[in-house]
Amino acid sequence: MTPPAEKVTPISGFPEFLPAERLLELHFLDTIREVFELHGFAPLETRAVEPVERLLGKGGDADKEVYGVSRLAGEESSRDAALGLHFDLTVPFARYVLENAGRLSFPFRRYQVQKVWRGERPQEGRFREFTQADIDVVDVGGLAPHFEAEMPLVVAEAFRRLPVGEFRIQVNNRLVPEGFYLGIGLEDVAGTLRIVDKLDKIGPDKVAAQLVEAGATDEQARLCLALADIRSEDLSFVDAVRALGVSHPSLEAGLEALAAVVRAGLERAPGTLVADLRIARGLDYYTGTVYETQLVGSEDWGSVCSGGRYDSLASDGRTTYPGVGISIGLTRLVHLLVTKRGLTASRSTPAAVLVAVVDEESRTRSDAVAAALRARGVPCEVAPSAAKFGKQIRYADRRGIPYVWFPGAGESGGDQVKDIRSGDQVDADATTWECPTADLRPGIVTREP
Amino acid sequence: MTPPAEKVTPISGFPEFLPAERLLELHFLDTIREVFELHGFAPLETRAVEPVERLLGKGGDADKEVYGVSRLAGEESSRDAALGLHFDLTVPFARYVLENAGRLSFPFRRYQVQKVWRGERPQEGRFREFTQADIDVVDVGGLAPHFEAEMPLVVAEAFRRLPVGEFRIQVNNRLVPEGFYLGIGLEDVAGTLRIVDKLDKIGPDKVAAQLVEAGATDEQARLCLALADIRSEDLSFVDAVRALGVSHPSLEAGLEALAAVVRAGLERAPGTLVADLRIARGLDYYTGTVYETQLVGSEDWGSVCSGGRYDSLASDGRTTYPGVGISIGLTRLVHLLVTKRGLTASRSTPAAVLVAVVDEESRTRSDAVAAALRARGVPCEVAPSAAKFGKQIRYADRRGIPYVWFPGAGESGGDQVKDIRSGDQVDADATTWECPTADLRPGIVTREP
Repeated sequence: MTPPAEKVTPISGFPEFLPAERLLELHFLDTIREVFELHGFAPLETRAVEPVERLLGKGGDADKEVYGVSRLAGEESSRDAALGLHFDLTVPFARYVLENAGRLSFPFRRYQVQKVWRGERPQEGRFREFTQADIDVVDVGGLAPHFEAEMPLVVAEAFRRLPVGEFRIQVNNRLVPEGFYLGIGLEDVAGTLRIVDKLDKIGPDKVAAQLVEAGATDEQARLCLALADIRSEDLSFVDAVRALGVSHPSLEAGLEALAAVVRAGLERAPGTLVADLRIARGLDYYTGTVYETQLVGSEDWGSVCSGGRYDSLASDGRTTYPGVGISIGLTRLVHLLVTKRGLTASRSTPAAVLVAVVDEESRTRSDAVAAALRARGVPCEVAPSAAKFGKQIRYADRRGIPYVWFPGAGESGGDQVKDIRSGDQVDADATTWECPTADLRPGIVTREP
Repeated sequence: MTPPAEKVTPISGFPEFLPAERLLELHFLDTIREVFELHGFAPLETRAVEPVERLLGKGGDADKEVYGVSRLAGEESSRDAALGLHFDLTVPFARYVLENAGRLSFPFRRYQVQKVWRGERPQEGRFREFTQADIDVVDVGGLAPHFEAEMPLVVAEAFRRLPVGEFRIQVNNRLVPEGFYLGIGLEDVAGTLRIVDKLDKIGPDKVAAQLVEAGATDEQARLCLALADIRSEDLSFVDAVRALGVSHPSLEAGLEALAAVVRAGLERAPGTLVADLRIARGLDYYTGTVYETQLVGSEDWGSVCSGGRYDSLASDGRTTYPGVGISIGLTRLVHLLVTKRGLTASRSTPAAVLVAVVDEESRTRSDAVAAALRARGVPCEVAPSAAKFGKQIRYADRRGIPYVWFPGAGESGGDQVKDIRSGDQVDADATTWECPTADLRPGIVTREP
């Protein structure tokens, strides 16, 4: 039954972590989930597939390439609708809301942590399969604007509990550039946005040239760049925009909405939000507030958390369910922290204790010790073999397990536990021993990147 | 931008839960994960896709139909290897072990909780997309037999913490029927197993007929059925097999291994394991011990947790990594408990408290109350609008949120909190109020199925 030698190679864009890195990722997931739940977001999962038609209709950027899915042995495949893997969690969520509207209570707050797939070209920090952690609020007909301020503040609370260092959440409102462009006589809002969005990549001169090439005057191009250049942590961006002397109802509405978000940020988490009028977001379902997030000092990583308001993503023709949401690019964030900042977990297993085995005949005694420790919440494993104690200690050491338990090693036949970092070995009883809190779960450590 | 009316329909075989059901599922996931971690299994995730070649080479039962995956807009698709979605977590794990052998410590214990996809015909309790929760241990060259006893005992510990009622884990060892069949002169072991495996579906008479049709004598068929009929919670199955008067080295080895597993079960968790010589498991990568799990009183649901030992799934030609594992069919288990036994969560949100909003001007005060509650670990949300208090209370009631907090409702301008189940309303301070432990997280309740 032995199979032939097999070639095993990674698949570009489909990252996999080693156990210690996965433990780090789980710490992020647990922290994010805890904060989401503290804010009353209900958990949800949607299926991985959607009809291809629905996927292609939304956020149809060329870079959001969809993976099609079909049964290899499917006689009935012709009768199945064409399916594809979802490329985000917002489009499936909007569909879920439509499908279950009668069974949900609105406004509906949910979080969703799942894999998504995009067939884009793999590059550093960009994957074809990655995990997103999203929150969204949707309501029926209209959506109160205070939710637009809430989304980034929830993420900020999660980020402050995580070892990501300083960060800035940039906020804009699509109505601001939209109204501004219309106000200066540029009717092709989407086209203009698309060009201005390249600022970081190609710089202001080339953006200006492309705008002119697309039909703008030099003065219109100058104004577009001037708008994109405005940013402020306080409300001063409003006056800076007004100083450009452009007026349009959408611009006014956008400025007011953006000011409300920034004001809420100043009140509840000063220094977290920054109005940045350059932010646009690629996905074309956004209609109002948009967010991007940069880690300070690692701006070249791009946004690690993005989102926005969408007024018409979920609609059954009669009823519309406007929503706002934000999405943490978890795989990307953790992958960059691992590779660039050297973060990892302090051990490669949840086990805090290795229970040694004296000989195979007494394995049952070691099993009983382990059961007693587990009953009191101490993760542990029993040594795989009754090897020499030195080898059993090395087994623990290789995995970063801090304690080794020796049944019957005490003078009176009781047990002893050894902290293999310090070498201290003391009498201990599995029904009363207190594992130091700091050792109970793997910690987060930094190794040389 | 309003899209046209869209038809939204479920996709057969791709189940989705409502929020309260997902909360129930999360309770299962959290409990299972906690037990896995208490036993020192390291968390792992593998990519959702594997080369199709690898998937088709393993466990190639017709009913494990593979979903192929390809980029819809893929110019380079011809250069990509053909990919498919994994149909279990064992085949990807074996590949992961081969790929990372140099960076793992053996024996390597891991748990893995992920979606898998199978293109089989959807029916009650059978899905095309579902979540499995697996543990496995792999080692290099050889694998100590005590791990074969450990796997089902870990699952039993998780199940005892979950509202699944009584359950039985059935154990067999493939060497037993294999050696037995060879011992009575039936050389086509796989073919015989396949026919005997239909016992539950077609009954003993038809199985006997098919065996004879395949070349067995009446006596050989009778002996096959006699073997499959043996089960015991203690070690008496050994004598029952011996009484059939068949001998073969593989049969002896299998009986010894199976006896060791059952003995460990009797010592560590009496009444949990039952030797059942009918169990075979479909996937053909199993080579030794195999497991299935039935909920008592719901045997017609089929196995909710299965697995076994595989000696040659992971091999690079020179080194073989034998392993043993067991897999909880989580989606199936939870789905059946929801639909058949009426289990669900006591509320549809993690929030224990709704903080009322007196008027939009004072929303900041309500936000501050919520922040104080969250800082002390109490999940809560702030009312979406400053509606009449009756409406705000109904908002909480519809979601099962037990408490509504009224800022400034006390006589001295302090806050009050109302238990909306009892109607009791008392003075409270968000920095000191203790939410009753039973209300902090959603509980599990049974509604009429």
